[in-house]
Amino acid sequence: MSTFHFKRKVYLQDKPRHEAVQQMLAHFESKQEIEWLDSSSSLGRVLAEPVFANSSMPHYHASAMDGIAVIAEETFSAHEQRPIQLKRNEDFVYVDTGNEVPSPFDAVIMIEQVNELTEDTIEIIEPAVPWQHIRPIGEDIVQEEMLFPQGHLIRPVDIGALLASRTVTVPVVKKPIVTIIPTGNELVSPAAAISAGQLIEFNGTVFANYIHEWGGEPHLHPIVKDEPEELRVVLLEAVKHSDIVVINAGSSAGSKDYTVHMIQELGEVFTHGVATRPGKPVIIGKIEDTIIIGVPGYPVSAYLALEWFVRPLIYEVLQTPEPVRQKLKVKVGRRIVGAMGAEDFIRMNIGFVDGEYIANPLPRAAGVTMSLVRADGILVIPPTSLGYEQGEYAEVELYRPLEEIQQSIVCIGSHDLTIDLLSSQLKKVKRDSRIMSSHVGSLAGIMAIKKGEAHVAGIHLLDPETLEYNQSYIERFLADKEVVLYPFLKRKQGWLVPKGNPLDIQSIKDIVQKQGHFVNRQKGAGTRILFDMLLRKEGMGAEAIIGYDREMFSHLSVAAEVKGNQNAVGLGIYPAANAMGLDFLPVADEHYDLLMTKEFFESQKGKDLIDAIQSEEFIEIVEGIGGYHLERKPNPIYFSKKE
Amino acid sequence: MSTFHFKRKVYLQDKPRHEAVQQMLAHFESKQEIEWLDSSSSLGRVLAEPVFANSSMPHYHASAMDGIAVIAEETFSAHEQRPIQLKRNEDFVYVDTGNEVPSPFDAVIMIEQVNELTEDTIEIIEPAVPWQHIRPIGEDIVQEEMLFPQGHLIRPVDIGALLASRTVTVPVVKKPIVTIIPTGNELVSPAAAISAGQLIEFNGTVFANYIHEWGGEPHLHPIVKDEPEELRVVLLEAVKHSDIVVINAGSSAGSKDYTVHMIQELGEVFTHGVATRPGKPVIIGKIEDTIIIGVPGYPVSAYLALEWFVRPLIYEVLQTPEPVRQKLKVKVGRRIVGAMGAEDFIRMNIGFVDGEYIANPLPRAAGVTMSLVRADGILVIPPTSLGYEQGEYAEVELYRPLEEIQQSIVCIGSHDLTIDLLSSQLKKVKRDSRIMSSHVGSLAGIMAIKKGEAHVAGIHLLDPETLEYNQSYIERFLADKEVVLYPFLKRKQGWLVPKGNPLDIQSIKDIVQKQGHFVNRQKGAGTRILFDMLLRKEGMGAEAIIGYDREMFSHLSVAAEVKGNQNAVGLGIYPAANAMGLDFLPVADEHYDLLMTKEFFESQKGKDLIDAIQSEEFIEIVEGIGGYHLERKPNPIYFSKKE
Repeated sequence: MSTFHFKRKVYLQDKPRHEAVQQMLAHFESKQEIEWLDSSSSLGRVLAEPVFANSSMPHYHASAMDGIAVIAEETFSAHEQRPIQLKRNEDFVYVDTGNEVPSPFDAVIMIEQVNELTEDTIEIIEPAVPWQHIRPIGEDIVQEEMLFPQGHLIRPVDIGALLASRTVTVPVVKKPIVTIIPTGNELVSPAAAISAGQLIEFNGTVFANYIHEWGGEPHLHPIVKDEPEELRVVLLEAVKHSDIVVINAGSSAGSKDYTVHMIQELGEVFTHGVATRPGKPVIIGKIEDTIIIGVPGYPVSAYLALEWFVRPLIYEVLQTPEPVRQKLKVKVGRRIVGAMGAEDFIRMNIGFVDGEYIANPLPRAAGVTMSLVRADGILVIPPTSLGYEQGEYAEVELYRPLEEIQQSIVCIGSHDLTIDLLSSQLKKVKRDSRIMSSHVGSLAGIMAIKKGEAHVAGIHLLDPETLEYNQSYIERFLADKEVVLYPFLKRKQGWLVPKGNPLDIQSIKDIVQKQGHFVNRQKGAGTRILFDMLLRKEGMGAEAIIGYDREMFSHLSVAAEVKGNQNAVGLGIYPAANAMGLDFLPVADEHYDLLMTKEFFESQKGKDLIDAIQSEEFIEIVEGIGGYHLERKPNPIYFSKKE
Repeated sequence: MSTFHFKRKVYLQDKPRHEAVQQMLAHFESKQEIEWLDSSSSLGRVLAEPVFANSSMPHYHASAMDGIAVIAEETFSAHEQRPIQLKRNEDFVYVDTGNEVPSPFDAVIMIEQVNELTEDTIEIIEPAVPWQHIRPIGEDIVQEEMLFPQGHLIRPVDIGALLASRTVTVPVVKKPIVTIIPTGNELVSPAAAISAGQLIEFNGTVFANYIHEWGGEPHLHPIVKDEPEELRVVLLEAVKHSDIVVINAGSSAGSKDYTVHMIQELGEVFTHGVATRPGKPVIIGKIEDTIIIGVPGYPVSAYLALEWFVRPLIYEVLQTPEPVRQKLKVKVGRRIVGAMGAEDFIRMNIGFVDGEYIANPLPRAAGVTMSLVRADGILVIPPTSLGYEQGEYAEVELYRPLEEIQQSIVCIGSHDLTIDLLSSQLKKVKRDSRIMSSHVGSLAGIMAIKKGEAHVAGIHLLDPETLEYNQSYIERFLADKEVVLYPFLKRKQGWLVPKGNPLDIQSIKDIVQKQGHFVNRQKGAGTRILFDMLLRKEGMGAEAIIGYDREMFSHLSVAAEVKGNQNAVGLGIYPAANAMGLDFLPVADEHYDLLMTKEFFESQKGKDLIDAIQSEEFIEIVEGIGGYHLERKPNPIYFSKKE
């Protein structure tokens, strides 16, 4: 921390991504090596050469029925009025399904059509057509025929064809070896003890799993310290036995980002910086025959860069086409501004509401792993585009199967911990269901229902006039919609303070007098509206509150903030205090209800949701948390359209 | 083989498939057991319980920039005209990206905006906004938030979220154990020596690979002989440690199919026979808590039955939705007759020609593994449907990605071994290309071009009048199309006879006189047309030829037939003789050319195809086989539309 800092002198390139990929591929001398595997263990591998059948299937003329094998010509005169008799082992032999039809026999008669006179004599009344009920040699597979071209990806049924033709080993493409080198003094392994300023090394493990999925062989190197000499030794060793080396991170252009200089010294650098957001600080180079890729440390940048640059190399070695993601046309729910001059990769939530796919952007920060986890798809905005206005249509690449998006219940509104539990419960009742929830606050939830972007909104809005919850807001904002308010639960709101309540906060006055650092919620959140009401009741304004402008988007975020600061205080629900080990001083019992469109409420999905809510298992889980009372079989309140 | 046969008394049910599935699921007490795994090794597994974050990410207030951490309030007066000075370790500390911003500092100023006066004093000219350039605690993940509901399938990025929040182990659903018992006296392992009447056991291995793909844990038992007592012991043992047991085969209703009786005796049988074609003889039952499924021996029946009945059980345990196949509307190229009263599962080839998806049925026999291998999709005809007329539209479930079908070059016509090699060569040049070839004969190839079902047809049609190849046929049949004939290669046709030519065949007269068993080709095949011409030249008719009506669909099939019979003779190409170790007596040098639509010939795909043909590597491979001469840079012949 005491290092002296120089002003930065190195600037990153703004190379178009596709140009960087093409240039990299042109420099990549893909070494396609062959590995021979047992066919039975070749699932998911790619053939390095065409494969020909070693043997026919069947490899003999096989009976397709239980019956007798005959010489067809000898049966031609058989007739109901003139049955002919055949002698066993001379004129016929018994065969079961799968048995050989020995020469000179050339037809099979089903046992049902045979009249057995004695042990050795039978009678037939119909002629046999030559080759009837026989599976001839090679009916399925002919010896020497090409079963699969090179480049074929082996599926279970293919293994059947290989074994059936006695092709017991196959030449597959050896998986390209990708060595992953995590670097950084601040990194510790996930299981280790951790202190402030330290970061868990998880990118490397994520890389390894992606590479495995794409068909490469990942080698995850232990963490390397920020020591140029140490990295040099590790890098030179990795180059010897890898097709690709990925270094994470140190790919930027800061005074301590020496990776680019090292690659330049040991080999060459093609690219330093691509015109993307996120993901810009990428290094692509080559040492000996090995491609070296330096990717940024922020998770989202890192995973996107891996997909852009490492995946094509793997498929180049495998010589199979890169899988493409399904595309979907969506309506953009909120304005999205593009990063002019750079390709912009926006992680999107997609809801299927009223027959329309509505997509909204997730947080854009490159450090927010959960934005990728939660994404239903990604919107790529080209460098020349200004972005999208609300209501415009855009094409997104899907991260989930379309069916999953279609099945999702979109729940936009206030945050309550039970919504997640409800999602889990619903999956138990109906496994293809899912609740996709966004925490934007009660008022924004009402607006989402108004705009047709959500099926459900969790809301807890106290009307300062009537001191009633929710109904007056619905009447005010949703006069043009048919909606249903489903009374969900009552919960306790209260002051969240550090364990032991060091400032001895009991009321809003205490917060002001004892200069508590207040942790607020975002505008439109029911909790914020409650706090504002309490403020007004005391005749105070926002300026009296330290931290009034510091906004958090969930109860847990408020609680996490309070936990880290002895002077802090927040307003939130009991379970959040409980989860973070804080003290809780109750302020209000509030109604947290579910607002739904009438159409959704009456749909099968809506019924499934109510079933999950009213299940004994769910009630038990929710009330077991503390601070909650769940309404039993409440009467839903219908709001009709005002003309 | 000497077993005495009883007429069959047991009849199979015709239970609708979906009813059988529902009944089975109702009897299945899914035991969902939990297994704890390292998060880093949990890829592709399904969460058995919801998972909550163990720790926030970041778990401290982290600097998002290299710079200095300050108390924002103390900087509010900074201005270009009134810079303020700050003292190190009192008013500010240096921080790098990722460092902790220690209390009471609450903002970070980028190093670029800091004027460093001395080692310990800096100057700033702009105020800092509270919390600027800080990633607050829990920005990405808040401790105790639900990361994933139960039932979630873990992807690489999810492992990142788990490790980032120090959730280093996860509860996943234990994979259901599926024991596979192959039964049959005729079965031998693929590596063993094999004689006529014996079958290679490959179904079990295919099952194991399917079950693995679906997320189950397959246990493949060694082959069990057709001994009721032996099967009983194996079955009772398997039931103890399996969720599901699959017995292959013995599921029919023959006198030796005792499996159903054994299951009935040890437990109960719900279903014996489902109304499907293929796949009818299926047994579904239960012994103790284990579902027992008996599937037929024919590969296609077996794999379909596995998918219908075992896959839903696995997903029942995993509690995740069964993946669905992409569906595609296709135009039916040939009439398809449904099996009234049974669901019919037709394996289909699908070609994308002239902007239309044209689908044609593959062989329907349940024994033909290659019909599943080659299928692009499957057409399910309900029991009440008569089927489809040519030109009608139908919906198929895809077995391959749509992109692969779109990229395929459809080659329908005469069979030549080099077409497969060309497919392989093309994949080298353009890895997302593929030739989908059907062997239907030259004339049928011309008709496929006429009907817009193919891009390319391999043809070798000798005109008995002009003694020229191909051109007169094109003029006769394709007057309404713009097509191109691309001279591909010359190849030798000749008599295929067993090694040593035991009948001493030199001519068509010899075949007649020495009573050779002729192996013919199907109607419309160029080779058959050649044979018919030779016959006519000798003034003979088809009735003089033993086996004239026995039709094979490829040169290799003819060669395989000839190989098995000392009296046999066929007409075919040299490489087929060579592949099967037969003798070859040349009869004619013929032109095997490629007929293409003009549109295809001039498209990029067409150019790629010609590039592959004219590549030195391909010429070398083809001419290395023997019997072929490939045309170098030939002049394509254009046929224009006749008005």
